[in-house]
Amino acid sequence: MDKGLWTKNDLQNLLHSEQDLPPITVGVSGRHIHLSKEHLCELFGEGYKLTPIKDLSQPGQFASKECVTLVGPKGVIEKVRVLGPVRSQTQVEVLAGDTFKLGIPLAIRLSGHLNDTPGITLCGPKGTVVLSEGVIVAARHIHMTPEDANRRELHDGQVVSIKFGGIRGGRLDNVVIRANESGALDCHIDTEEANALHIKNGSIVEIVK
Amino acid sequence: MDKGLWTKNDLQNLLHSEQDLPPITVGVSGRHIHLSKEHLCELFGEGYKLTPIKDLSQPGQFASKECVTLVGPKGVIEKVRVLGPVRSQTQVEVLAGDTFKLGIPLAIRLSGHLNDTPGITLCGPKGTVVLSEGVIVAARHIHMTPEDANRRELHDGQVVSIKFGGIRGGRLDNVVIRANESGALDCHIDTEEANALHIKNGSIVEIVK
Repeated sequence: MDKGLWTKNDLQNLLHSEQDLPPITVGVSGRHIHLSKEHLCELFGEGYKLTPIKDLSQPGQFASKECVTLVGPKGVIEKVRVLGPVRSQTQVEVLAGDTFKLGIPLAIRLSGHLNDTPGITLCGPKGTVVLSEGVIVAARHIHMTPEDANRRELHDGQVVSIKFGGIRGGRLDNVVIRANESGALDCHIDTEEANALHIKNGSIVEIVK
Repeated sequence: MDKGLWTKNDLQNLLHSEQDLPPITVGVSGRHIHLSKEHLCELFGEGYKLTPIKDLSQPGQFASKECVTLVGPKGVIEKVRVLGPVRSQTQVEVLAGDTFKLGIPLAIRLSGHLNDTPGITLCGPKGTVVLSEGVIVAARHIHMTPEDANRRELHDGQVVSIKFGGIRGGRLDNVVIRANESGALDCHIDTEEANALHIKNGSIVEIVK
């Protein structure tokens, strides 16, 4: 039975860490939604505030106890977790497989890049919001500070690959470096990408330039 | 909007095909089940015969109209398609994500290698079968004839990688060559692997040795 043991890659990365480069850990994202203040009120009621239940890897970000339902032309997905705090624009992040279930086009985008993305209907306990755009499949990326990037001879916006070993090992290309002052070192991929390479939350990946 | 257009990799593979090597197309598998004759009768009734509704890529294999329900300690998955014809041993093929939902261990195996795999409860319209083993996440593999393998300087059981380009491009390692006389050239990966690399049914991949 596979026990998720450390692989040769993991050990190589540990060696790198001895040269003062902390290993790149993975944070695996399932489907979730970021709401604007206006949409939060429409779905949950006027003046509503999100209730944080778990801090996320990026400073200030949290999972809330609130969930919404996504309603597409071909299917419905219930209990989609709302992440906080509220943002300037509502953004729904789903898995590629979810787009088939919902019956909407698949748009792979970095967070915040919502031009020419499909819409969806959101249902909450106090109301419904019909989005004309904002549903993305998140493009894989690595958060870090500009200092982290500099030490690795990387820069914000650079596109790299990540490698992982083991029984379902492989390489994922087109991973975008997102370097900013509040960036906590973490490689974000979604559940399908993680499952395809048998990567778990906290697994260590190697950057390939 | 991403349209699944042909990529540079696809075109490179087309060039290979001009050298008389047909391109390696992908068949994407969702969760499904192969039943033994005995289990078919227990689930659907004595003397029951599967009703084929669609031929699959491998000669003689078909999707049937019959479905069963998988019941694990933590969750249930309904409408799991039965593939035919019946086999000597029942084998359930699920996605990695399904194992979390069902609450069973994840065992990545080639078809037929069921030692030390988890069991599950199967429910059909006429009965229930409690399997003590047989649930696998299929190891990715490429079917071909020994002649196909020979022309590519490959052999049965060899482990290769596959490459795919495009927006979610990458490489999947540990892909097993399965060469036998009835093998129709087809690379089998599951839905999560396909979604992670934005591969579709019929996409063309490149073999890397």
